[in-house]
Amino acid sequence: SSATAPIRATLFPGDGIGPEIAESVKQVFRTAEVPIEWEEHYVGDQIDPRTQSFLTWESLESVRKNGVGLKGPMATPIGKGHRSLNLTLRKELNLYANVRPCYSLPGYKTRYDNVNLITIRENTEGEYSGLEHQVVRGVVESLKIITRQASLRVAEYAFHYAKTHGRERVSAIHKANIMQKTDGLFLKCCHEVAEKYPEITYEEVVIDNCCMMLVKNPALFDVLVMPNLYGDIISDLCAGLIGGLGLTPSCNIGEGGIALAEAVHGSAPDIAGKNLANPTALLLSAVTMLRHLNLHDKADRIQNAILSTISEGKYRTADLGGSSTTTDFTKAICDHL
Amino acid sequence: SSATAPIRATLFPGDGIGPEIAESVKQVFRTAEVPIEWEEHYVGDQIDPRTQSFLTWESLESVRKNGVGLKGPMATPIGKGHRSLNLTLRKELNLYANVRPCYSLPGYKTRYDNVNLITIRENTEGEYSGLEHQVVRGVVESLKIITRQASLRVAEYAFHYAKTHGRERVSAIHKANIMQKTDGLFLKCCHEVAEKYPEITYEEVVIDNCCMMLVKNPALFDVLVMPNLYGDIISDLCAGLIGGLGLTPSCNIGEGGIALAEAVHGSAPDIAGKNLANPTALLLSAVTMLRHLNLHDKADRIQNAILSTISEGKYRTADLGGSSTTTDFTKAICDHL
Ligand SMILES: CC(C)[C@H](C(=O)O)[C@@H](O)C(=O)O
Ligand SMILES: CC(C)[C@H](C(=O)O)[C@@H](O)C(=O)O
Repeated sequence: SSATAPIRATLFPGDGIGPEIAESVKQVFRTAEVPIEWEEHYVGDQIDPRTQSFLTWESLESVRKNGVGLKGPMATPIGKGHRSLNLTLRKELNLYANVRPCYSLPGYKTRYDNVNLITIRENTEGEYSGLEHQVVRGVVESLKIITRQASLRVAEYAFHYAKTHGRERVSAIHKANIMQKTDGLFLKCCHEVAEKYPEITYEEVVIDNCCMMLVKNPALFDVLVMPNLYGDIISDLCAGLIGGLGLTPSCNIGEGGIALAEAVHGSAPDIAGKNLANPTALLLSAVTMLRHLNLHDKADRIQNAILSTISEGKYRTADLGGSSTTTDFTKAICDHL
Repeated sequence: SSATAPIRATLFPGDGIGPEIAESVKQVFRTAEVPIEWEEHYVGDQIDPRTQSFLTWESLESVRKNGVGLKGPMATPIGKGHRSLNLTLRKELNLYANVRPCYSLPGYKTRYDNVNLITIRENTEGEYSGLEHQVVRGVVESLKIITRQASLRVAEYAFHYAKTHGRERVSAIHKANIMQKTDGLFLKCCHEVAEKYPEITYEEVVIDNCCMMLVKNPALFDVLVMPNLYGDIISDLCAGLIGGLGLTPSCNIGEGGIALAEAVHGSAPDIAGKNLANPTALLLSAVTMLRHLNLHDKADRIQNAILSTISEGKYRTADLGGSSTTTDFTKAICDHL
C-alpha cells in the first residue's frame, strides 16, 4: 500500500565532516525503521553549466521532485566569483523561510536553562540582495531590498507555524526606527498577517533591544520572525545560548512545500575523517524533516533518543566535553531507540 | 593659574529621568571637587530654525566651544518627520565614533563574570544613511553606505584607543561574505590601519559568529570595531551580558576631539520624577568624559566610589533589585569619595 511505500528524500552529505554525520543519520533512521529512501548527491568538482554552480542540476532536480531533503555542511570553493553554495540552494529552490528551533538540551549545562525559541528568518532578500556597487572611489553602497510579497510570505509562515505548534507569541524583529521604509514595510506585513491570527499575541521588538533581552532573559521570547540579516545574527546568538551550532537544527521552507533541513555549522576540515564529529545538529535537522512529513512518531522517538543520550552524558563527543567517537555516540542513540 | 581655572562642559540633562540622574552627576562631581563648570542646555519645545531640530543652536554651539559634554536620555517628540535627537546630535557634531566600555560590575551578579570589552561603533553612515525609497509598489530599498574616509577614521580611533588603553586585540566585525563591497571596504580599511599597529593583534570576525561567541564566552574579545548597525546591535548585546543599559557608559567622539558622553538608556517616563532612577550609566559616562579630559585621578576616584557602592549592595536602586532612591544611592557614592 502507499502507506508503506518508502518516501524518497534527497541527501547532501556535504564536505568535511559531512559524510560522517550523514552516516550517523542513515544509521539512526535505519534503526528507527523510518520509511525513507535516500537519494544521495554530492557537490560537483566543477561548475555545472546548467546551474552555473558546483551544485549539479541532478541534485537540485532531486530536491524539487522529492520535496524534502537533508543537507550537511558544504564548503564553498575558495576563489573569486563563487557564490556560497548555501545561498545558491536558497535561491535555486526558492527557500523563503529558515526555521531554527532552539531549546536547551536537558543535562547539557550552559549559562541558560529552559531556552525554547523558534527563529524564523526571511531567506531570500534584505541585505542578501547581492546588489552592491562603488559610487565613486572610496564610496560603496549595498542595497537592502524588502518586498511586500516576501514579507507577507514569511510572516504567514511564522504565524501558521505558531498556531500549528501551540506557540503563543510572535515577535517581529526590526530596526524600523532607522529604516522606516524597508523595515517599516516588513512590520506592516507582519501586522497585517497578525490580524488574521487573533489567538496569537503579536509584538514588535527593535533588534538591539531584542539582543539585549535575549542574553538577559531568553524566556521572554517564543517565535521570532525577521528580515534576512537579523535572522542570521539572532539565530546564531540563540544557538550560542544553548551551546552552539553543533546542537541546533535548521530547516528551510520553499515554495510548493519544499523542506530542506540542514546543519548550519561548518564542515570542520580539521577533524574531518577522524570519527570525532558531533552529528547532533544534522540528526535534529533530520527530525525537523520528519515532522515536515508528518512522521511525528518517528520524529519523537529519534529526538528523545538523541536528547536522552546527551542528557545521560556517558557518550558525548569532544565538542561537548566528552571523548566518544561519532560512531559510539551514534550507537548509543540507536541503543535508546 | 590656568591649571585651576574650571573647565566648561555642556550638560544636556534630557527628558524623563534625565534631570534626576544629571543632578546625581552634579552632586558627585561637587563632592569629588571636579573642576568642571556645567553649561546646562535643554531640548527646546519647538523647532529651532537654525538647526531644523528641537535642539537649540545655542546648545550645539556650547558643545562645539567646550569640546566636551554629557547627555542624559532625550525623548524624540512623536510625530512624522522628527528625526531622532540622538541622530541629530551625531550628525550636527560629526560624532564619528561611539565608544562603549562594557565590564562586569564587581558584586553585581549576572550570568557572566569578568566581561571586559570595548565596542567602537562607526557612528555616521552604513545603514543609518537615511537613504531609502520605494522602487515600485511593494518593493522598497535602503542604501547602506560605507566610505573609505569614515572607515579609516573609526579604525584609526579603535587602534589608537587599544594602544593607549593597554588593550591587546582589535576585532573587526563584518558580514563581508555577503556584503563584499561595503563590509569588504570596511575590512580593507581596518586591515590597513592594523599594519601601523604591529603590537596590536588584529582579527576579522563575521557578525553572526561574533554574537554566538559573545554569548558563549565574552572573554574571547577585547576591542571590537564595526560599522554602524552592527555596533548598535553588539553594544546592546554586550550591555545585556553585564546587566543592561542602566549600567553601561558611552562616549561619542567627534572631529576636532569633541567628546560627548551619554547614557544610552531611555528616558523611562513611567518612573520620572519619583526619585527611583539609577544614575549609574550617566555617572560612568561622566567618568569617560573625565578620562577624555585626562582627569584620571578624579575619574578613578569616582569610578571606584560607584563600583564600591554597587558592590557592597546596601544601596541599590530598584532596577538592580534594591530599594534605594536615586538620592540615597548618590549619597552613598559621595560617602565613598
Ligand atoms: C555561510 C553564510 C553565507 C550563511 C548566511 O549568512 O546566511 C550562514 O551564516 C547561515 O546562517 O546559513
Ligand atoms: C535610539 C536609536 C536611534 C539609537 C540607534 O539606533 O543608534 C539607539 O539604539 C542607540 O544605540 O543609541
